[in-house]
Amino acid sequence: MSGWLAIAGLGPGSEALVTPEVRVALAQATDIVGYIPYVARIAPRDGLTLHPSDNRVEGERAAHALEMAAAGRRVVVVSSGDPGVFAMAAAVFEALEAGPEAWRDLSINVLPGITAMLAASARAGAPLGHDFCAINLSDNLKPWELIERRLRLAVEADFAIALYNPRSKARPEGFARTIDLLRDVCGDDRPILFARAVSTPEETLTIVPLSQATPDMADMRTMVIIGSSQTRIISRSGAPILYTPRSAS
Amino acid sequence: MSGWLAIAGLGPGSEALVTPEVRVALAQATDIVGYIPYVARIAPRDGLTLHPSDNRVEGERAAHALEMAAAGRRVVVVSSGDPGVFAMAAAVFEALEAGPEAWRDLSINVLPGITAMLAASARAGAPLGHDFCAINLSDNLKPWELIERRLRLAVEADFAIALYNPRSKARPEGFARTIDLLRDVCGDDRPILFARAVSTPEETLTIVPLSQATPDMADMRTMVIIGSSQTRIISRSGAPILYTPRSAS
Repeated sequence: MSGWLAIAGLGPGSEALVTPEVRVALAQATDIVGYIPYVARIAPRDGLTLHPSDNRVEGERAAHALEMAAAGRRVVVVSSGDPGVFAMAAAVFEALEAGPEAWRDLSINVLPGITAMLAASARAGAPLGHDFCAINLSDNLKPWELIERRLRLAVEADFAIALYNPRSKARPEGFARTIDLLRDVCGDDRPILFARAVSTPEETLTIVPLSQATPDMADMRTMVIIGSSQTRIISRSGAPILYTPRSAS
Repeated sequence: MSGWLAIAGLGPGSEALVTPEVRVALAQATDIVGYIPYVARIAPRDGLTLHPSDNRVEGERAAHALEMAAAGRRVVVVSSGDPGVFAMAAAVFEALEAGPEAWRDLSINVLPGITAMLAASARAGAPLGHDFCAINLSDNLKPWELIERRLRLAVEADFAIALYNPRSKARPEGFARTIDLLRDVCGDDRPILFARAVSTPEETLTIVPLSQATPDMADMRTMVIIGSSQTRIISRSGAPILYTPRSAS
């Protein structure tokens, strides 16, 4: 069997943030599988079949990719950011575990990418410079109560907190509740970063105290980072710098 | 003033994981500043001065880089992994805040990289595929009590946990205490990944249940990831796959 499967991270948007390792896999592929806007980033060429699919069909997409690899194709599943962070790698392994035994012999490689929180953090300064956590705010795959519980424990641990998918389509009020909860437990002054479409021409960065955060500051392309109690802002003539010092007491 | 400062992530070791954005900065630099083994990764060339320095002098190194940029040099501070995750970006901003007001007008950019936990996660499967946290186990810059408190809260939140710097030189018994604590609160069966020197020729990956983890499985080049209660292992003829499914209840 000469087929293989790579699950590759395209980074947050800029081609300058795609690793050479991912470039090689894309160049060797016969098939590209992924969510429509991510597959749209791949240049068509002879011998390459693009398989864009809609959101919310991750399981079917993963099984399709495994089937093609088992049939001898060289398949790259593309994710934005890093495939292992709230993206396709876990979906592929769920499908692998549920699928035919023969799939387990396939060559499968996960190729890491620059995940959204690292890109956003870099553009703002270094808000994740001390201990931190990453929480997916989408409640498609877990109950809202678990999200709230994690947020409270994360604040108690004094982590900086990176929030992926802040605006869930299924429950748009979730992010409003998140802001209320955070104000409750962190106070009004804690800095919050809204980093939208980082590394693309549409990039915007906004840093406000929690008291001024409103739900409409985030959309589906926004990464949100809440500082820890130690996170600081350096003012200057240009954009302010948001960072968390290395030491804590 | 035509000088600038870039704080760049070289990724975990392989040149195939260095982003094109970082390559461009390195090609334009007049000066490279960083910890000895990271600066050793940069090829010497005419017009480029290398400034390797020892571990534990991050503050002085950061100030030196800012001074040179202020003097008109094009300076790249190199970190392994991502500069914003337990690396040089926070150290530079600490020095910036403490330094002369004029430094604040400098052009400073953080260039993200593939941080160790993402590289380790990719090689093992997708253990960070659901909510997770990252904790620096070094107690150089924070009290051990805070580390223990964070570990307990992270387990209570059922995060997968990525541990940076598991073997602190200053307190080698710290990682033994961490394993004891985790066994206490997670039970014996929770999988733990030891990923050493990922993406280099010396790479090794070991996955064991917590009951079989021993402190000597980690050294200064090892990334440790402890699964959440949902993390699973897929057995197969090749290396097993460690992953955390997307959903939780």
